[in-house]
Amino acid sequence: MSHDTRLPDDPAPFPPFGVNKREQVYDSPWCGLRRDEVVLPNGDPQEYHVFEISNAVAVVPITREGEFVLVGQYRYTHGATQWEVPAGRLEDGEAPQTGALRELREETGYAPDRMVELPGFYPTGGISAHYAHAYCALDCDLVGELQLEASEQLIVRTFPRTQVEGLLDAGRFADGFTALSIAYALRIVPELA
Amino acid sequence: MSHDTRLPDDPAPFPPFGVNKREQVYDSPWCGLRRDEVVLPNGDPQEYHVFEISNAVAVVPITREGEFVLVGQYRYTHGATQWEVPAGRLEDGEAPQTGALRELREETGYAPDRMVELPGFYPTGGISAHYAHAYCALDCDLVGELQLEASEQLIVRTFPRTQVEGLLDAGRFADGFTALSIAYALRIVPELA
Repeated sequence: MSHDTRLPDDPAPFPPFGVNKREQVYDSPWCGLRRDEVVLPNGDPQEYHVFEISNAVAVVPITREGEFVLVGQYRYTHGATQWEVPAGRLEDGEAPQTGALRELREETGYAPDRMVELPGFYPTGGISAHYAHAYCALDCDLVGELQLEASEQLIVRTFPRTQVEGLLDAGRFADGFTALSIAYALRIVPELA
Repeated sequence: MSHDTRLPDDPAPFPPFGVNKREQVYDSPWCGLRRDEVVLPNGDPQEYHVFEISNAVAVVPITREGEFVLVGQYRYTHGATQWEVPAGRLEDGEAPQTGALRELREETGYAPDRMVELPGFYPTGGISAHYAHAYCALDCDLVGELQLEASEQLIVRTFPRTQVEGLLDAGRFADGFTALSIAYALRIVPELA
């Protein structure tokens, strides 16, 4: 790929909304919900809901033989079982790369030789400051058994790169973390170029 | 790109969790929060929070001249102003493509000749059934002024494709809807191949 290296700046920042009050309408160890009253640029007050949840990590694991390691995972929210990359929430104070290695180990039993950082992202920036860190784990080897939580139902399988690209382009990675992390890995990681 | 066309099946579906009760802990016209008690495969009950919000659309607009139309948008949740694709929530009963055309028109003033559907995705499938539909809008022309809500602060700018690819690979599209929709458009839309 050849890019125009004269990248434009980020847009000039707009002044932040004023905030009249912040009300915690729900809180729990898992997530919270805030209802703020913000002041719009025109001076009007407006309710703005902010969903609170710990930041997340997603990791695209590639074996020493060049295959992608995916998990077929059940999601309670929508009910489907889908191919995903290992992912999860960061624990309190946990460094993102440490969390990525932990989730990879727990959900697949694999550990890598090297980690390449991929761009992170706000999955739902309109409603939450929730941020996802993403990595590609290279030269992964199977080092042990899965260590699943009781709420996790998943199976592990390796896929050749051509099938992963086929699944991506066919829209079969309905999990956004998975689709974006894999798309980034395919674009950015030199070993995959 | 050449893909292995023998795509694997989706993973065999796991049986869904049982549900002992669903409790609506918060509700509003904008979003809701449910606290369910599910029954795990091992028979144990467990709290499971589900965040409720209407489904969304994102659209990658490309002008008749082949430039990408992006909006520099302020997000209250994290405070930054970033380049994004036009996106928003579907209105009640609104068809996804209609919503995509509406958001494109409101946030940029552009209208396309043709729409190509991109794969949709669950931005945060672990916590919400919230689903995003995505499109690429081709042969866009400027047809009028922006129609912004009072809470929207944004500017509109067109970018050559090379700069869009540069921004994507540099991780400068921190908005997940934006990064994934653009990555899909670059992979899938024949006019961009």
